Amino acid sequence: MIRRIHHVAFAHPSGSTMPWALREALALEDVSEELGDGFVERMLRVGDGFVQLLEPTGPGTVQRFLDRRGPSLHHVGFEVDDVAAAVSSLRLAGLPLVEPAPRPGGMGSTVAFVYPAAFDGLLVELVQPSGDKGP
Amino acid sequence: MIRRIHHVAFAHPSGSTMPWALREALALEDVSEELGDGFVERMLRVGDGFVQLLEPTGPGTVQRFLDRRGPSLHHVGFEVDDVAAAVSSLRLAGLPLVEPAPRPGGMGSTVAFVYPAAFDGLLVELVQPSGDKGP
Repeated sequence: MIRRIHHVAFAHPSGSTMPWALREALALEDVSEELGDGFVERMLRVGDGFVQLLEPTGPGTVQRFLDRRGPSLHHVGFEVDDVAAAVSSLRLAGLPLVEPAPRPGGMGSTVAFVYPAAFDGLLVELVQPSGDKGP
Repeated sequence: MIRRIHHVAFAHPSGSTMPWALREALALEDVSEELGDGFVERMLRVGDGFVQLLEPTGPGTVQRFLDRRGPSLHHVGFEVDDVAAAVSSLRLAGLPLVEPAPRPGGMGSTVAFVYPAAFDGLLVELVQPSGDKGP
């Protein structure tokens, strides 16, 4: 069901040196910047995957996460062929804690989050990339 | 310098349902289990990368991390062609906060950690896989 690690997301406050360090020291390339609800989401390419940087622009989930945990890894995105099928499969496998209806994600993808309680604190995002019609 | 995301590591306490959920619900396959200093490190395959599960077996860095943060994402491993060259390159790029001498990592790899202060809290591991002699 899971193809590969699509991205790993890190939340950082405004003014963090983190994006600089990734771009300049590790030579990661920016490929996308999109506004979410209270945050900006930047994707930096790493091979065939991405590091996702989440920076708050106001109150919301990212700011609450930073208030609670400080700058830290936020979630992991796993690429799937078909996110709707993956959601059904997880529910059948006894993991009801998944968003029931896939929704638009970054870079034209379709995504569903699995709530952290399902994985003992790990927030998992299932990602079907843009233009990917499944197997 | 960075080829791809080699692994993303998650620390969990003994008795966590996390490994079960990854194996059973997401069908990830165990490929390695090795003892570290106060922890056991398990690698589950995800495409051409891995999820690394860190479980404490006694006092040490993993137990201290859990005491401080609870079960959560621990670090990200980036694959490099040549870890010694990557360490030199990072020092030249103005990131002195990297372990000076690469050392043996899991599954026969050679690794060096970049201290979290370099990336505003993100712990980065540079990984040269086993048998990989560089470009």
